[in-house]
Amino acid sequence: MTDFVAPTDDILFCLRHVADAHRVEGWDDALAADILGHFAQFAEGVLAPLNAIGDAQGARLVDGRVLMPDGFVEAYAQLAEGGWQGLRAPEHFGGMEQPALVAAGVSEVFTGANHAMQMVCGLVPGAVETLLHFGTPEQQETWIPPLAAGEVLSTMCLTEAGAGSDLSGIRCKATRDGADWWLDGEKIFISGGDQNMSSGILHLVLARSGSVEDGLKGLSLFLCSAVDGVTVTRIEEKLGLHASPTCQLAFCHARAELIGAEGDGLRAMFTVMNHARLDVALQGVAHAARASQIATAYAQDRVQGRRKDGSPARLADHADVQRMLAEQASLAMGARAICHVAFVEMERGERADLVAFLTPLCKVFSSEAGIKAADLGIQILGGYGYLNEYQLGQVWRDARITSIYEGANGIHERGIATRGLKGPGADQFADLIRELGGTSDLVLADLAAWVTWRDRMRGTDDAEREAHDFAQATAGLFFRACWAKCAAVSDSHPEPARIKALADRVLSS
Amino acid sequence: MTDFVAPTDDILFCLRHVADAHRVEGWDDALAADILGHFAQFAEGVLAPLNAIGDAQGARLVDGRVLMPDGFVEAYAQLAEGGWQGLRAPEHFGGMEQPALVAAGVSEVFTGANHAMQMVCGLVPGAVETLLHFGTPEQQETWIPPLAAGEVLSTMCLTEAGAGSDLSGIRCKATRDGADWWLDGEKIFISGGDQNMSSGILHLVLARSGSVEDGLKGLSLFLCSAVDGVTVTRIEEKLGLHASPTCQLAFCHARAELIGAEGDGLRAMFTVMNHARLDVALQGVAHAARASQIATAYAQDRVQGRRKDGSPARLADHADVQRMLAEQASLAMGARAICHVAFVEMERGERADLVAFLTPLCKVFSSEAGIKAADLGIQILGGYGYLNEYQLGQVWRDARITSIYEGANGIHERGIATRGLKGPGADQFADLIRELGGTSDLVLADLAAWVTWRDRMRGTDDAEREAHDFAQATAGLFFRACWAKCAAVSDSHPEPARIKALADRVLSS
Repeated sequence: MTDFVAPTDDILFCLRHVADAHRVEGWDDALAADILGHFAQFAEGVLAPLNAIGDAQGARLVDGRVLMPDGFVEAYAQLAEGGWQGLRAPEHFGGMEQPALVAAGVSEVFTGANHAMQMVCGLVPGAVETLLHFGTPEQQETWIPPLAAGEVLSTMCLTEAGAGSDLSGIRCKATRDGADWWLDGEKIFISGGDQNMSSGILHLVLARSGSVEDGLKGLSLFLCSAVDGVTVTRIEEKLGLHASPTCQLAFCHARAELIGAEGDGLRAMFTVMNHARLDVALQGVAHAARASQIATAYAQDRVQGRRKDGSPARLADHADVQRMLAEQASLAMGARAICHVAFVEMERGERADLVAFLTPLCKVFSSEAGIKAADLGIQILGGYGYLNEYQLGQVWRDARITSIYEGANGIHERGIATRGLKGPGADQFADLIRELGGTSDLVLADLAAWVTWRDRMRGTDDAEREAHDFAQATAGLFFRACWAKCAAVSDSHPEPARIKALADRVLSS
Repeated sequence: MTDFVAPTDDILFCLRHVADAHRVEGWDDALAADILGHFAQFAEGVLAPLNAIGDAQGARLVDGRVLMPDGFVEAYAQLAEGGWQGLRAPEHFGGMEQPALVAAGVSEVFTGANHAMQMVCGLVPGAVETLLHFGTPEQQETWIPPLAAGEVLSTMCLTEAGAGSDLSGIRCKATRDGADWWLDGEKIFISGGDQNMSSGILHLVLARSGSVEDGLKGLSLFLCSAVDGVTVTRIEEKLGLHASPTCQLAFCHARAELIGAEGDGLRAMFTVMNHARLDVALQGVAHAARASQIATAYAQDRVQGRRKDGSPARLADHADVQRMLAEQASLAMGARAICHVAFVEMERGERADLVAFLTPLCKVFSSEAGIKAADLGIQILGGYGYLNEYQLGQVWRDARITSIYEGANGIHERGIATRGLKGPGADQFADLIRELGGTSDLVLADLAAWVTWRDRMRGTDDAEREAHDFAQATAGLFFRACWAKCAAVSDSHPEPARIKALADRVLSS
């Protein structure tokens, strides 16, 4: 197996030179590099070595409580001790108050080292943001400090049997009794629904405070930290992410408090979900980078066949292997680039419609990039790629969920091709492509073709039928434009020739 | 979960009407349907129910012997009792002497029901063929009857650490001592290297009877059924096919006999390997068909969202799901069609170069079709696709090996684009495309473009660099031509409208 090494250089190249992070107010370049460096060390030394153990052991449900695999409890204590759970939270609540760009780098490294553990810890920033936007001062004071300190972990309880992609079917009932609310119902697919790492758990629960006829408008968001009345009824047996307990939770007269306005649950929940979506995109980046790392190390080391002059060759000398290695590497950097560009737009806050247009593109493209790069990694290693030993199978299995959760990719693609085209975001997207890829005639030609297609899509009633192809082409254009930008700034990368070669390959394909 | 149902109608449609099996001398249509029907019943009732059990338990190495999962020993006894292991073997050796076309149908159904078990049993036809071509009358008399009766299973021992895709590095040593040969060395990745289902095992071992300097010419093929001197040193922990024991075998002064001429090992081994390659292609077909079956059943059943008129919709009503279901179905039938066409050419025996050209195309295309269809199945089911319960994860994991073993796809693609273009097979391929797809202007236009590309590839020194793209396009053309044929004969299918719609989709894409 290949030890995990955080791709810090690539992340910093992307943040600094492709996404131009300095355009974000308050960006502290040296501090960002310092924080990333520290987290990389922690991830390499503590989180990554637990990844295969977690996969082999899995989380277990014992006497109604979820037990994490060996070493996870201790590693989490170190994570909390290091203050990493409070990376984004405001200083006056005990956090480090670091910008989203730094957190994006940390999140990618965390996932690359140990996706399952990142899943269980990774919903906290979204919970903090929800509390900051919708919570009362008292709710913020009560919950943000322990979340930031790592004493409490949080969950996002949306899905029910029969209400996954379509939330209007939610039946979990919230009943008011004076100032208190009580929850009754069942939620499924709750990541980290229980665990034995943090002393408390804060569930953010979407529940029905109105009638079924109210549909989505009858839904409100609740905070529930109850121990009584919340039971883990099962954890799922899954293809991957074995160390991330996916719980079925039964709420039975569980005490809760409303957060945000009654009937406004979906809007509040979207704060967590939008955060989670970009985080999923970064998970895809992490998988692509990790798969590329493992396969590159193997292919450079493994003796295979002969060169044309008869001398022994390495696997990496063969044309087809080079093709696959290059594709992996370009998926990893290109997916990272589109995410960082979206994060910078988000932080600059000037083109909110553009950010809304970019978010699903990042989610769709990067999740598929992670799966594809893992698949290529298995192929590069051949028979060895099929063995557990080299961990590519785990990367592939863990990555596979990313195109499903936080909105299945097909649903995002429909959104991009319908709702997404109605607003000004799709016009600003064309501007963004020019800003990123303006030096490349190939990108400009692609853009012209895309604009024609966009305008046709805007005029049709049947956009859904073409949604997949259109969304894929849109994301592909974004990816290529980012590679044009990578090429233009390649001299700032430690390996400029490699970046230029990868860019040529992407742009000429 | 969805019970396995053998796709007998689709197989017969493909054999009869797309591949025109009646053109093969001795084709007995009614008998073929009868045999397939019987095997389908056995696969549905006995083999398929063990598939998930096999995945969960895996094969285990206990005190030096491999134990198969619960139920496998009993199921194998029934398989042998039914005579299925002797399906292809000559009658005078106790076999059923059925044509390869019938065996192809049986093999697909076997894999769809239980790939792991098919792996362990599936090398016997290749071993019988090798014995028929290269064995002495005595060797044939000794080994074919017990192989056909299922008393003995066979393995194919090629790979060594450091000698996988490149067999010239093989070091397993064969030493002659009078009339006897003795083997010393280690082989890895041996499917069914041991198991407790058959009373004996016949290893076909490629070993070095000459010096290392002789390279491939120093290799001979041996039969080894020794118990003394053959040890299972480990079984691999793999991504999938858990019930198929992938063994590391140590040969330590193990008695063996030469089969075929000394130094002619590779040629003899290719008989087994060519057989195995078409069998791998059928494994891909089986996975595609099974994934399509599971996802179609789920999507037709599952309530999800609403139709435009507000009434409750099924998952299968959504445009994007329809796209994925159609892609799965077209991959399954199209991959099956190209394999059947290749088998008919093989059986007719008139265009051997064409068969050599088609075999790697079938292997590459169909293995990737299986993986892709399984991937789509997971996506269609969403979160449920990620659970073990619906078995799509198992299909995906089991299918993943098919693009690696029996020659990694990249190596076949290189062969197609280089060696494959040198002979007349690539000219006959153009004839075949016209025969299959001549009714479709789209196919003819594709063919014209392909011929130009082919001729350019023939003239270049750097074909390896384009090999992947060229081989993919070549296989894609074969697939589309078969779909044009499917459309032309769709009235012979129980669901002609569905076949026509799928063909339209494939040909217009």
